[in-house]
Amino acid sequence: FTMSLFVYCIGSMYCLVKFAPLFLAVAVCNGWLFGDFVGKRSELDEISLWPLPQKFQSSAVAFKLSPARFQIVQAKQSSAGPSCSILENAFRRYFEYIFGDLKKPEKSRKKVYDSDLVELQVWVTSADPECDGFPSLQTDESCEFFPSASVLHCAVTSMLSNPMNDRQRLETFSQLVYEDDYGVNNINKTDISDFPRFAHRGILLDSSRHFLPLKVILANLEAMAMNKFNVFHWHIVDDHSFPYMSRTFPELSQKGAYHPFTHVYTPSDVKMVIEFARMRGIRVIPEFDTPGHTESWGNGIKDLLTPCYSDSSPSGAFGPVNPILNSSYDFMTQFFKEISTVFPDAYIHLGGDEVDFSCWESNPDIQRFMVQQGFGTDYSKLESFYIQRLLDIVAATKKGYMVWQEVFDNGVKLKADTQIHVWKGRPQYQDEMAQVTAAGFNALLSTPWYLNRISYGQDWVNIYKADPQNFTGTDAQKKLVIGGEACLWGEYVDATNLTPRLWPRASAVAERLWSDKSVTDVDNAYNRLVQHRCRMVKRGIPAEPLFVGHCRQEYKGL
Amino acid sequence: FTMSLFVYCIGSMYCLVKFAPLFLAVAVCNGWLFGDFVGKRSELDEISLWPLPQKFQSSAVAFKLSPARFQIVQAKQSSAGPSCSILENAFRRYFEYIFGDLKKPEKSRKKVYDSDLVELQVWVTSADPECDGFPSLQTDESCEFFPSASVLHCAVTSMLSNPMNDRQRLETFSQLVYEDDYGVNNINKTDISDFPRFAHRGILLDSSRHFLPLKVILANLEAMAMNKFNVFHWHIVDDHSFPYMSRTFPELSQKGAYHPFTHVYTPSDVKMVIEFARMRGIRVIPEFDTPGHTESWGNGIKDLLTPCYSDSSPSGAFGPVNPILNSSYDFMTQFFKEISTVFPDAYIHLGGDEVDFSCWESNPDIQRFMVQQGFGTDYSKLESFYIQRLLDIVAATKKGYMVWQEVFDNGVKLKADTQIHVWKGRPQYQDEMAQVTAAGFNALLSTPWYLNRISYGQDWVNIYKADPQNFTGTDAQKKLVIGGEACLWGEYVDATNLTPRLWPRASAVAERLWSDKSVTDVDNAYNRLVQHRCRMVKRGIPAEPLFVGHCRQEYKGL
Repeated sequence: FTMSLFVYCIGSMYCLVKFAPLFLAVAVCNGWLFGDFVGKRSELDEISLWPLPQKFQSSAVAFKLSPARFQIVQAKQSSAGPSCSILENAFRRYFEYIFGDLKKPEKSRKKVYDSDLVELQVWVTSADPECDGFPSLQTDESCEFFPSASVLHCAVTSMLSNPMNDRQRLETFSQLVYEDDYGVNNINKTDISDFPRFAHRGILLDSSRHFLPLKVILANLEAMAMNKFNVFHWHIVDDHSFPYMSRTFPELSQKGAYHPFTHVYTPSDVKMVIEFARMRGIRVIPEFDTPGHTESWGNGIKDLLTPCYSDSSPSGAFGPVNPILNSSYDFMTQFFKEISTVFPDAYIHLGGDEVDFSCWESNPDIQRFMVQQGFGTDYSKLESFYIQRLLDIVAATKKGYMVWQEVFDNGVKLKADTQIHVWKGRPQYQDEMAQVTAAGFNALLSTPWYLNRISYGQDWVNIYKADPQNFTGTDAQKKLVIGGEACLWGEYVDATNLTPRLWPRASAVAERLWSDKSVTDVDNAYNRLVQHRCRMVKRGIPAEPLFVGHCRQEYKGL
Repeated sequence: FTMSLFVYCIGSMYCLVKFAPLFLAVAVCNGWLFGDFVGKRSELDEISLWPLPQKFQSSAVAFKLSPARFQIVQAKQSSAGPSCSILENAFRRYFEYIFGDLKKPEKSRKKVYDSDLVELQVWVTSADPECDGFPSLQTDESCEFFPSASVLHCAVTSMLSNPMNDRQRLETFSQLVYEDDYGVNNINKTDISDFPRFAHRGILLDSSRHFLPLKVILANLEAMAMNKFNVFHWHIVDDHSFPYMSRTFPELSQKGAYHPFTHVYTPSDVKMVIEFARMRGIRVIPEFDTPGHTESWGNGIKDLLTPCYSDSSPSGAFGPVNPILNSSYDFMTQFFKEISTVFPDAYIHLGGDEVDFSCWESNPDIQRFMVQQGFGTDYSKLESFYIQRLLDIVAATKKGYMVWQEVFDNGVKLKADTQIHVWKGRPQYQDEMAQVTAAGFNALLSTPWYLNRISYGQDWVNIYKADPQNFTGTDAQKKLVIGGEACLWGEYVDATNLTPRLWPRASAVAERLWSDKSVTDVDNAYNRLVQHRCRMVKRGIPAEPLFVGHCRQEYKGL
């Protein structure tokens, strides 16, 4: 019997010492280390890791994985226990990614060869395994593959401090598996020390301009996990529709969704998205953007929006949230109280972008209020007045908040942990990043990653070249950059075209946010990304081609 | 019993006279012409015809279609007979489009109401019903819906001179059906006189730069039928891969395809594409582009390509087909003999574009030949020499040919029925169209319709505005414009993204080529196209959105 272990761990020295007695009991295996296959293996397999780990070293020593024998299990010593669904779910998912869904372990074929890798052991060492917890900005996502001692030739195990980051590790493990000429799955002995460059690596999807069926959202969460994204920024409502079904204010979706039954997200749908994301180490941060971008809110909530005037009488049109009525703030208080309980993440995105002042300017009640407050004709002061009160309301729910850059630009007083989301100034975002971080705020970059903006040719290259820390500032400022988000605004995408338009273009963002700053070789990235895109296709994600070529398994859908 | 007939016919007077005795026997029906629903019907239904018929007049008189009772059948007098698969296939397809695939006629629910439309009768009058024939450039695609006499209120039938064009009629019929508030299918009495503006309305798909699985090709043929396209220009092979499996030269795909088994079109696959297209009135015109764009051919056929030289010795690279060897022409003779039998259409596309002269220039044998022939250093003369011989070879197979514009530009002597395919000079194509038609050749336009070239926003508008007859020339010249093709070159598309990238952008081309020249109102087109795209989505085609909005039934796939 060859016990096969692969080491994933947080502290490598700790691992070596701790495991030493165990390793000594492991038979030294020959595998096909000395066999015919050594040397035949193509380089392609090694370079298809995406995003590229911080450090990795692959050797020619390879092991075979038999679907009849290989299993992913928790180590006996693991503190998580067999009911840890976040682990069990991941084990099944990655077994299927590696072997496909047609094969299953068969007890009758348990004969083990020296060259076999029979088990991936996942060892959770943390006192609180957090199997029921949610990922957060603080989740430790570092990991190490570490089977380098000579006795470990055929040894594989996984040690985790926390099941939250096991997704990243299993994803890396699955990317290391390749098929040989016989179609047999192999894995080479590989040392990996890995951790993300940025803690916040997000994708924004917009379910307001077009309703996105649950199936589409879930598939894209799957793809996010394959690319080690860890934040789903759900731009769930906007001017055009309000698909979020609120328990407190059901009329919001009843009157604001494209259809009150077929084009809404029920509380159960939302729970499912959050749980599906949690299983993949992905945070779900909802955005409820106010005071602009709220036209659809007005359908369900009387007097929430500002009545616009034309020739000194109401025109029938409505503008942003009415900032001069207490009822607006009463509504927001109740509404965000609900939101803060429905969405477990510590952060809510409050929007605050693109407030059109013309309606406010037209309204005599607003004009009077401006005079009372001494705002003169500076409507950005009124905007700040609204936002300030909103932030206080949300702060009372104990949530942190993210806001679009205008809120910072307009000088609103912000909590120290506020994350400023930079999106303007395409293609120059450097000044804004410098200013935000100079003011001591955490910054998130999206300007170069508005993936809704398509063009002919290989536009992933410019997406890949953008760097969130590429601005003039101190080291302290650079550290305030917590990451970025690829945004796919919904004007031109729905279930028919969202997924291929997002992938693998978003993968370019994934590597920029995960891998070392020095990973900038476009040719090398191209070669890996071509294979990574085929891997996504094989796993059922219709990721579009980068350029001329083919996948061994083409997409089976339309 | 209310016999419900709708008149489709070629000669309207002829129809009236011929049908008069029959119509008199039909009970006059009241339907809900005088019922509560009249007037409630939204305008939207009427304006969703796409492409817009040449003439149509809709009335408020509506009939209901019950899935339990409605049927599409051949009239007793029809000359085609029950074994006419092209008709029977279309009947089933359109029944399913109208009612979905969950419902079926039930004999127990045969009670008929006055307001029912119970039958669509298709009457084929031609002596040769051509049920086993192929569509051609000459196929009569005109059609009339004509139930306008008062006795015809609830009368629907269809009269066809030829089953080939029944697709267009059934498509129009199905577009006239709309759901009322109860979800019941209705159709309004509508007079239609319709015919296409251009006889050649094509889509080019490229299965060489990326292999397109059969499923993708068939789905796009479906979508073509929904848009009344009638030519599938199959750019089947190119430099990058040779997926066409030749019976005469099997080594072409064995060595030239991305994979000899998984990435090829077998003779059976090709037959299936042709038959699937035939059922939808679509011609399949294959393109075998030479002498350039042939790199993949060289893998299977020794000495077919020109060896390039570097410093007076072969560099190992190869250029276009070698035009100075008789073996090249022997090969082409055998190859095109096969092609002419495999593809039933009267035309083959012979390519002839973008020949790179640098390899020819480098080769001393070619240089010698140039001197012998007195070509000087004008390699376009050598190109013409090759093309001339190729055209003679293909002409001997009794096929007509289409060529890209370079062949014309280079002054090659062409048969009078040659179709010149204009693709260069984006965005100005007018001069070329004028020159081609001034020389008396049929012209096809593609320049403004390179749909592979994507950009952000509503690019369908410029696609829609282009007009193939928008050049300076005589009426006789304008008549030589037989149509155009939307081209989706394959550099950046495969199964993952082809279909949403093509539709509904290609629909804009469809209307330009079908509808009257005066149909140019972009706002009106937008409203109809939004609905037409949702209709395609409902029928399973992932046609992407034009802009913000929703479909009642969103796409169910990814």
